[in-house]
Amino acid sequence: MAAVVPDGFARPSGRAPDELRPIRIQRHFTRHAEGSVLVSFGDTQVLCTASVENRVGGWLRGKGEGWVTAEYGMLPRATHTRSDREAARGKQGGRTLEIQRLIGRSLRACVDRKALGERTITLDCDVIQADGGTRTAAITGAYVALVDAVDVLVRRGEVKARAGRPPIFGAVAAVSVGIYRGVPVLDLDYAEDVDCDTDMNVVMNDGGGFIELQGTAEGHAFRREELDAMTALAEQGIARLVEIQREALGS
Amino acid sequence: MAAVVPDGFARPSGRAPDELRPIRIQRHFTRHAEGSVLVSFGDTQVLCTASVENRVGGWLRGKGEGWVTAEYGMLPRATHTRSDREAARGKQGGRTLEIQRLIGRSLRACVDRKALGERTITLDCDVIQADGGTRTAAITGAYVALVDAVDVLVRRGEVKARAGRPPIFGAVAAVSVGIYRGVPVLDLDYAEDVDCDTDMNVVMNDGGGFIELQGTAEGHAFRREELDAMTALAEQGIARLVEIQREALGS
Amino acid sequence: MAAVVPDGFARPSGRAPDELRPIRIQRHFTRHAEGSVLVSFGDTQVLCTASVENRVGGWLRGKGEGWVTAEYGMLPRATHTRSDREAARGKQGGRTLEIQRLIGRSLRACVDRKALGERTITLDCDVIQADGGTRTAAITGAYVALVDAVDVLVRRGEVKARAGRPPIFGAVAAVSVGIYRGVPVLDLDYAEDVDCDTDMNVVMNDGGGFIELQGTAEGHAFRREELDAMTALAEQGIARLVEIQREALGS
Amino acid sequence: MAAVVPDGFARPSGRAPDELRPIRIQRHFTRHAEGSVLVSFGDTQVLCTASVENRVGGWLRGKGEGWVTAEYGMLPRATHTRSDREAARGKQGGRTLEIQRLIGRSLRACVDRKALGERTITLDCDVIQADGGTRTAAITGAYVALVDAVDVLVRRGEVKARAGRPPIFGAVAAVSVGIYRGVPVLDLDYAEDVDCDTDMNVVMNDGGGFIELQGTAEGHAFRREELDAMTALAEQGIARLVEIQREALGS
Amino acid sequence: MAAVVPDGFARPSGRAPDELRPIRIQRHFTRHAEGSVLVSFGDTQVLCTASVENRVGGWLRGKGEGWVTAEYGMLPRATHTRSDREAARGKQGGRTLEIQRLIGRSLRACVDRKALGERTITLDCDVIQADGGTRTAAITGAYVALVDAVDVLVRRGEVKARAGRPPIFGAVAAVSVGIYRGVPVLDLDYAEDVDCDTDMNVVMNDGGGFIELQGTAEGHAFRREELDAMTALAEQGIARLVEIQREALGS
Amino acid sequence: MAAVVPDGFARPSGRAPDELRPIRIQRHFTRHAEGSVLVSFGDTQVLCTASVENRVGGWLRGKGEGWVTAEYGMLPRATHTRSDREAARGKQGGRTLEIQRLIGRSLRACVDRKALGERTITLDCDVIQADGGTRTAAITGAYVALVDAVDVLVRRGEVKARAGRPPIFGAVAAVSVGIYRGVPVLDLDYAEDVDCDTDMNVVMNDGGGFIELQGTAEGHAFRREELDAMTALAEQGIARLVEIQREALGS
Repeated sequence: MAAVVPDGFARPSGRAPDELRPIRIQRHFTRHAEGSVLVSFGDTQVLCTASVENRVGGWLRGKGEGWVTAEYGMLPRATHTRSDREAARGKQGGRTLEIQRLIGRSLRACVDRKALGERTITLDCDVIQADGGTRTAAITGAYVALVDAVDVLVRRGEVKARAGRPPIFGAVAAVSVGIYRGVPVLDLDYAEDVDCDTDMNVVMNDGGGFIELQGTAEGHAFRREELDAMTALAEQGIARLVEIQREALGS
Repeated sequence: MAAVVPDGFARPSGRAPDELRPIRIQRHFTRHAEGSVLVSFGDTQVLCTASVENRVGGWLRGKGEGWVTAEYGMLPRATHTRSDREAARGKQGGRTLEIQRLIGRSLRACVDRKALGERTITLDCDVIQADGGTRTAAITGAYVALVDAVDVLVRRGEVKARAGRPPIFGAVAAVSVGIYRGVPVLDLDYAEDVDCDTDMNVVMNDGGGFIELQGTAEGHAFRREELDAMTALAEQGIARLVEIQREALGS
Repeated sequence: MAAVVPDGFARPSGRAPDELRPIRIQRHFTRHAEGSVLVSFGDTQVLCTASVENRVGGWLRGKGEGWVTAEYGMLPRATHTRSDREAARGKQGGRTLEIQRLIGRSLRACVDRKALGERTITLDCDVIQADGGTRTAAITGAYVALVDAVDVLVRRGEVKARAGRPPIFGAVAAVSVGIYRGVPVLDLDYAEDVDCDTDMNVVMNDGGGFIELQGTAEGHAFRREELDAMTALAEQGIARLVEIQREALGS
Repeated sequence: MAAVVPDGFARPSGRAPDELRPIRIQRHFTRHAEGSVLVSFGDTQVLCTASVENRVGGWLRGKGEGWVTAEYGMLPRATHTRSDREAARGKQGGRTLEIQRLIGRSLRACVDRKALGERTITLDCDVIQADGGTRTAAITGAYVALVDAVDVLVRRGEVKARAGRPPIFGAVAAVSVGIYRGVPVLDLDYAEDVDCDTDMNVVMNDGGGFIELQGTAEGHAFRREELDAMTALAEQGIARLVEIQREALGS
Repeated sequence: MAAVVPDGFARPSGRAPDELRPIRIQRHFTRHAEGSVLVSFGDTQVLCTASVENRVGGWLRGKGEGWVTAEYGMLPRATHTRSDREAARGKQGGRTLEIQRLIGRSLRACVDRKALGERTITLDCDVIQADGGTRTAAITGAYVALVDAVDVLVRRGEVKARAGRPPIFGAVAAVSVGIYRGVPVLDLDYAEDVDCDTDMNVVMNDGGGFIELQGTAEGHAFRREELDAMTALAEQGIARLVEIQREALGS
Repeated sequence: MAAVVPDGFARPSGRAPDELRPIRIQRHFTRHAEGSVLVSFGDTQVLCTASVENRVGGWLRGKGEGWVTAEYGMLPRATHTRSDREAARGKQGGRTLEIQRLIGRSLRACVDRKALGERTITLDCDVIQADGGTRTAAITGAYVALVDAVDVLVRRGEVKARAGRPPIFGAVAAVSVGIYRGVPVLDLDYAEDVDCDTDMNVVMNDGGGFIELQGTAEGHAFRREELDAMTALAEQGIARLVEIQREALGS
């Protein structure tokens, strides 16, 4: 991680290149959902709720397996300028669909769907305030909400470990990395996001394995050594996020 | 308000018939919007943001007037059981449209639209947690967000008082009243709402004038004396809500 | 009802303040529906049909109860200027949804849903010509169509009175009232509607009970004494409408 | 037209093979539209209104020409069993779109669009009651509404004849023909329509020219001599319909 | 067919009035579908696939019959200028719906739906390149794809001839005819289509029976003798198309 | 690239781990579009057309820049079982939107948008036949169509090189890589795609820079060394694809 930082380089926030924003995970934020977490990555705040329903989509019926899915939304004025309400426009945009597909895939990677039985857990990730990195915050927070929801099912005796493996195995967290003014940086905020050359979202588990990797060259194409530097930063950031998840869960 | 309360009558919450839930108004809840208020009526929590845009709809263009409108949404798991996300279903339901039309009409009643100039202020009322009375909480909170947004415009010198009248004249607040087990009660929570005979939403100004009155007999039709008792309760409750708005605004 | 009418006050139609427009209820207007009524409140004409289907929505299946619902539409050129066809625009507007929800709730108030059995009665209220008061005319006419449709079911032996109470108990009618140039008036036509300070739609039963009350201050907020004057006018108007319904039904 | 009618052949209505249903054209049926006609072909009743707007679609702007278009709808209970309301379903069906395109094309065939100037005339054809032949009744009635609307424009001095030709030149009417139980018949009603081998809709002008011809073999394919018999019947029926249009217009 | 062709008349393509464009039918064009045909009428190219599914719509369930239906689409740049993608616009246009209804009706005319059993065959007709006559090419090609798909079912033993009649009885083909500069012509290409007075699409079976006939006067109304000349041309063209279908099928 | 391949490992297609499928690029496949390419990666066939329009979206108007965008579609029976037509369902799915956003971003990376002027080039990528890797084939083919379209503009004198740099600078191509039964493989076909542990789509330019990288762990999470092996395979495959593009373009 010893990227040489050029003289005079500074992130808008004053953070070090490998420094996360202040991360906060508040469990039981609302009271109806089986899991409810307000996650903050600096000024980015996402409410993640996990809702359990005792049914699965038609394509899974009778197979004895469950499903985990996600929906993502942004309150119209979570951002600097108001954006249209998707419900009023009558459809979800491509960005929204892309993000909610990513969240769902990421979290299914740590779930024993057979242990769940024919249940669906929906992770609603609603952005209350946006300052960059909403999808990675959503994944990180939704993991905690998911653990809480499955714990409810376990305590009720509806779901059990199978073959010694708990229904949620391992942890999943996510962070963005990028090349900002030539320097690889961790956890981009909005000011960096609009002005960077490359932006990469990384989802990993607590064993250091990659679950999702989505990199986009915004300006010039990025080189392999930049890719290596970014993934190394992401590994380090996600290790820290997993610790924070554990602290929040008291485990 | 000396309705004779029958022996053994109790509200689920233990409140007196004419008692509001704990009311809380938190200003500056999020940082991008010109006005941002989290309003709580007990466990009902609504985030109300006011967004200013320097344009008006086509039907107003060139008339030198502004517009105030509202949009309402409920996070899917704001309620006991998860409801479909309207953006995913591809349309807003009738209840949503009805409520947002009500909020918009109610707040336009205290706005000097000529003073606004050709600007639109959109009040987004998003229910974070629902326990009955979301539309009345939304109106009460959105008023405060609207005042904050107009203050921003006044401080910037973009909007001025006209003929000695401020651009927002008077206050607007709302509360529900109903007949629960034969007794008129103020500010119904969810447990009362699903089990009452009549439910009425009342919007008033700080001068004691009615802006909106929407009463529905859920069980038996209600009599004129019940109507009178309910409107009297509403007058009293709204007078208190207006005080709380003033305290929040520090005015 | 002795409101003092100021000198020189005149309604655009020349009617007295407490005078209904000519009301006409034509039963059996079209031949396929179980109930079919063309109702006229002056130049406002609404075709109300009641259609019986031997099924209920999923949420009622197996409960042995029926449902009564309404849909409302306006022919594109029912009004002074042509409005878009909602089917072509691809969605029903908020006003339409609000009105059809009101009609459905109002009529369910006089129906013994258990007596209906697992049947749905849909009241289609289509405005052929509009001159103000379409929703109140629709409720008043739809009641008659509903009675005719239930009579068909009774005559076929499919529906019976329960415990001495007929499947349709009591009558339901509706009228608008308002404050026009300072004077409370009954049954507003379009010319009054666009120019009044307050507009209130009132739905009552034949026992003088309120079923729905929806008042909106268009100009200044209305005072309690204005509310009292308007509801008194409505009571009187609805009593007359119930008589006209009875005459039409020959009962 | 001397088709040999087999012994024992009878139409459900008792009509002769070449006999139209009773035709009725009521002008000025509603009061807001520039043209408003209720047309009846027996029990089929269609309200046709012509609405004038002083604008054209973007593709015509600046060309000095007008446009004539049609929209078609069926009230949900115009038919034996209730059909879904297209506005509620959120889209117009293929049959509806097909019919309204046909009506629009048919009527544009008798309009001098340059004489109209940059105006749009929309013909709304709403079926109040259906008993077969709604599209042919709609075309026949909409022609009369269109003439009335253009007369309004002529009387206002907004539209003039060009080069000695009136803005509406000639007449347009339509009728269905078919093969019912082996016999060519004119103006099918619903009982014939559901039980015939071939169904053809014919639109002609008053000069005996074909504007539209749409034939469909419902059972077996039809032969050229059947085609000839059907078009001959249509010619005769349309000649009579044009007379009835003229009588209605008092011309 | 001895229409007198005026001196100096020439079709844009140089073809004789009764001359088809080069017709080409390529079977097994793609590999997944049970039937897959690329049909070319000159530069018009349509990919027609037939897909078998072992289920029918709700209205047919339990009746022991199958269904044949069609969907039609045009690639956005099949035409001279790019048209909007219907999937992106969120709805199929009226023209598309009209054409796919026509294709479906036409092909059902040669299918023994009882022999199919409860199966649906969907004919997807996607226009790769358009030069006029896409719907008639689609019908002509889809017939061949349908035959191939039913052959698959017959070879698998899932479908059998009933009462000596094969499941597909007879052939169906289609061609357009029109009046171009006063002369009846066969198989219009785009240059003729935009410039003709009358355009007629004709669908016939191999026995010379008419299945669909849809004629539209684009300029002046057409006379009976023109109708006769056009249907004669169509008969001749379709006879040739049926031969080409047979050659393609090797039967 | 010397991954040790375990004994007995075989790809379903028999290809070597680092072997592309047969690649074919047919230019001028259809005749209307400015660029039209049928690209085949084995049995995957995508028609890519580039359409030029002399306008840009509102957000770019007046800025003197152009735009390049993509739309993606799959013919309903491009796949093993028929999928719903998106135009008929009324919306594009999340996968479609995600892919077309990816294609658009990828190609904008090699375009001098200022050189284009206020023009939009739309790349329509329609999958005729699918056997895995449709999005990477689409990007690879669309690049060639884009070059052809810009050449048309250059030949017409409408677009010029700026500051010595051609309007399209460099090349863009894409390929998928994955871990199949423990072995990193290049250019997955459908049989591998449904059965692999990790799937990664890589977009690069001809200078070896990464433009997009999207990796998903389908089974177990992937390790850094697997990531390295996959990106190395992608580099090699894309170098070959760029050669094939050059050959096709004759440059």
